Amino acid sequence: MRHTISVLVENKFGVLARLSGMISGRGFNIDSLNVAPTQDPTLSRLTMVLNGDDASLDLCTKQLRKLINVVEISDFKGEAPVARELVMVKVRADAKRRQEIFQIIEVCHARIVSMTPDTLIVEVSEDEEKIDSFLNLIEPFGIVELARTGRLALKR
Amino acid sequence: MRHTISVLVENKFGVLARLSGMISGRGFNIDSLNVAPTQDPTLSRLTMVLNGDDASLDLCTKQLRKLINVVEISDFKGEAPVARELVMVKVRADAKRRQEIFQIIEVCHARIVSMTPDTLIVEVSEDEEKIDSFLNLIEPFGIVELARTGRLALKR
Repeated sequence: MRHTISVLVENKFGVLARLSGMISGRGFNIDSLNVAPTQDPTLSRLTMVLNGDDASLDLCTKQLRKLINVVEISDFKGEAPVARELVMVKVRADAKRRQEIFQIIEVCHARIVSMTPDTLIVEVSEDEEKIDSFLNLIEPFGIVELARTGRLALKR
Repeated sequence: MRHTISVLVENKFGVLARLSGMISGRGFNIDSLNVAPTQDPTLSRLTMVLNGDDASLDLCTKQLRKLINVVEISDFKGEAPVARELVMVKVRADAKRRQEIFQIIEVCHARIVSMTPDTLIVEVSEDEEKIDSFLNLIEPFGIVELARTGRLALKR
């Protein structure tokens, strides 16, 4: 099962290394992770998606709470979070096929970020399901490069 | 100076722990980081922003190349990348002040993700400068919670 965990950490040296070391030491696989400073520059918020069963998740959050520099943890067990993800994809798009891609972009609420004669860079921020269906639609045109942020989540 | 590094890694157990351990071991401070699988589920792309001088950056990428499971590294030294970031922010917004916030949302191309009688959750995907100016505009209303993905970057 995939679990979302949000961790507020002090912006101290080596926090990410300690945290990810602890998680992989416990045998958890990190599916995605993002971390950046919050409105308080001394704190960062880290959101990760882990694969594992419920019991191991509880053990993992318990261990995380013990870590130095960890301020707050939320595992969204009571209520599903509001979740979004950002993806940027460079897709092959010559003049002939561009119109088709433009249609997909419009339907999927994607946005064009950059354009060359042969390629487009497109961004989408949506929930994962919608991002996956956008990528399925765009894939046949030829994905040159792709980067995803992983899930970003807040309590409702 | 802030540097962007994009690393393509094999989706193997403990990669993030090894990578972030190496970086903090070299004395680098990670400002932001995101990692998620690519269109090839055996590979993940990791984008990070590091603080440090040019010489240390070269040393860092050299060391990264030596790491097991690292497939490709780009430090965008030749050309600035196409960069975006996603932020989700829960802001205080009662009926009286909502209209003001709606105006900011429109001007900044933000989108409302969730609404309660007293709060709004808003998302923006833009370059960092525009996200920062959006946050400066929204901050006086009262930020309850905030999460950023950190910079996502692709070669132009």
